[in-house]
Amino acid sequence: MSDLLHVARDARGVVTLTLNDPARFNALGHEMLAALHQALDEVARDERARVVVLAAAGKAFCAGHNLKDMAQHPDLAWYQDLFARCSRVMLAIHKLPVPVIARVHGMATAAGCQLVAQCDLAVASEAASFATSGIHYGLFCATPSVPLVRNVPAKRAMEMLLTGDFIDARTALAEGLVNRVAPPEALDAEVQALVRSILQKPRTAVAMGKALVYQQRELGIDAAYQIAGQAMATNMMDEAAQEGARAFAEKRQPAWKQS
Amino acid sequence: MSDLLHVARDARGVVTLTLNDPARFNALGHEMLAALHQALDEVARDERARVVVLAAAGKAFCAGHNLKDMAQHPDLAWYQDLFARCSRVMLAIHKLPVPVIARVHGMATAAGCQLVAQCDLAVASEAASFATSGIHYGLFCATPSVPLVRNVPAKRAMEMLLTGDFIDARTALAEGLVNRVAPPEALDAEVQALVRSILQKPRTAVAMGKALVYQQRELGIDAAYQIAGQAMATNMMDEAAQEGARAFAEKRQPAWKQS
Amino acid sequence: MSDLLHVARDARGVVTLTLNDPARFNALGHEMLAALHQALDEVARDERARVVVLAAAGKAFCAGHNLKDMAQHPDLAWYQDLFARCSRVMLAIHKLPVPVIARVHGMATAAGCQLVAQCDLAVASEAASFATSGIHYGLFCATPSVPLVRNVPAKRAMEMLLTGDFIDARTALAEGLVNRVAPPEALDAEVQALVRSILQKPRTAVAMGKALVYQQRELGIDAAYQIAGQAMATNMMDEAAQEGARAFAEKRQPAWKQS
Repeated sequence: MSDLLHVARDARGVVTLTLNDPARFNALGHEMLAALHQALDEVARDERARVVVLAAAGKAFCAGHNLKDMAQHPDLAWYQDLFARCSRVMLAIHKLPVPVIARVHGMATAAGCQLVAQCDLAVASEAASFATSGIHYGLFCATPSVPLVRNVPAKRAMEMLLTGDFIDARTALAEGLVNRVAPPEALDAEVQALVRSILQKPRTAVAMGKALVYQQRELGIDAAYQIAGQAMATNMMDEAAQEGARAFAEKRQPAWKQS
Repeated sequence: MSDLLHVARDARGVVTLTLNDPARFNALGHEMLAALHQALDEVARDERARVVVLAAAGKAFCAGHNLKDMAQHPDLAWYQDLFARCSRVMLAIHKLPVPVIARVHGMATAAGCQLVAQCDLAVASEAASFATSGIHYGLFCATPSVPLVRNVPAKRAMEMLLTGDFIDARTALAEGLVNRVAPPEALDAEVQALVRSILQKPRTAVAMGKALVYQQRELGIDAAYQIAGQAMATNMMDEAAQEGARAFAEKRQPAWKQS
Repeated sequence: MSDLLHVARDARGVVTLTLNDPARFNALGHEMLAALHQALDEVARDERARVVVLAAAGKAFCAGHNLKDMAQHPDLAWYQDLFARCSRVMLAIHKLPVPVIARVHGMATAAGCQLVAQCDLAVASEAASFATSGIHYGLFCATPSVPLVRNVPAKRAMEMLLTGDFIDARTALAEGLVNRVAPPEALDAEVQALVRSILQKPRTAVAMGKALVYQQRELGIDAAYQIAGQAMATNMMDEAAQEGARAFAEKRQPAWKQS
């Protein structure tokens, strides 16, 4: 595994991925993307993984693509390959059977802002800031716009994309880009509150639910109800849901053995 | 008609449906769902119906499905049937030719929260609270997620679905789940303000409009404009719209005889 | 060009279109729609155009369709033609290769509110107000609902459409209908801040980006990433993006010659 990405697994199944290239503001170069993809693939195969925290070391959260590198490869195929790799990482987060929480302590720009938007949940420090800043260098943040418009109202997304200007953490909260904002010293506590809440839930129901939400959202409402009803009936046959319903009836806490 | 649901029609065409199973927090069991479906079918056939208020008796608004009942039927076909019945009720609200306003005085959880999200409009008491809480019992609120993600920003919806935690009425207002929040003693006045506003409008235009909004929302923008322009031209040929346009030109109130 | 629409182009490529029929509150009659369509077509062909500001003269921003005129033509084909013409203007804004900013100084009702919703960005005076008011005259704002539901949360849109009631500028900001609100005397300064920001960006990247955002938003997320990655790779091959990336690497401002 690359030094650019720290991977820590704890006994509870919490996987913390820490972007660790502070000198380049954790830019998403080829090596970083490969490391992220590999780490996400491993989480996908790890049945004991329960939740991912995506964090970053150094001053910035993530500055997006490495423009310096890109300047040295004026080659369409090279760029196509780069954006395809990056999109595969984003879709790996989207398709991962466990929730991914962005822990945003600092600046998140361009594909770094995209990472935050693509995560299922996000907690930001009051010191964090967000921009789809590619347009300042003549490069419209096209791929970041994919999760951005699925999180943020249309005109707000368009303003961020056209101006490239920063928004602060409170604005990001108001616009739906992050779930919670905390003072820097309370950031980990807020992240851990979400982590603990997810750990209390059965893995299978969470995995089914995350996939279902994103799938049904792309459908018309009739088709959405069709697959949601089917998913929920299947979920209800799980031993965990059976125990949950019995516990509810007996007014006690469910007794789940987590895989 | 079941005792579980009170149906009241007034001379203005206001139909108030009151969930009336306070001992079970108005849970959506088979009998309640059947009563709701029948009542909504009757409203759909009643050309004098103008608006539906969906209210509830007792402490809670609606606790969703009856988990106790569900615990006693560990049977896939039984669950599929239950969720299909529930989804048909939700789609009946969606397809009803008159607007449905949720009057939420208390707790709305799981499919109870779904009911609120599925209504066209919702007014909440400051004492109301909302949760997609199934996940606490191992059952991800898959069908509630269908209207939830069509009302509330993506990350907020995902947080509610994964944590199962309550949000209060002010938060529900800020996130778009309800239209208005009022102190408990002013809840009916707020609901009636919306009711009166709808009663002042021609039934045909309202019915066409509600259907058109939901239909065009699922289409690309070109197709959306196609059907919206056609719907509007047809609407304009109504006697009520002709009278409305003449009244506008003559600077007087439209004189409509309501069907 | 019609007297109903003032068209001003400056040396920077800023095209200001000013609705100029104050006596009829800038109603969108046949002549106004034709003038708007022609002006937008000219902007689309003008490679030196960089941004459009849509403004209006007189007390109101725009009162929508001319109901007085419509009352005199109780003819389905006439109405179909009218709404088709209007939708073509709205789609011309949507498809224009340069961003369109609504400068809303006063009342924007029905198709006037639609104009605001359809623009890419909008700045409102504190004195502005917004309503989809057709329903007061028996005509549901079906075509305005198309951009409205793509800007504003579902229940808020439905409330505006069913009640026809006004919302003020602060509410429009909170709901996502406009980007910024300013005191009347600061309205132009806010508009110009957005204009200047867009002028600093390369035209090609802005044109590609605007089109891409609206196109990918209508697709599933996999397809959205496909076209966004392709668009971004193509964008990166532009001389402007190459210069931008080099400037970034060399820690200097990009030196772009604007077409």
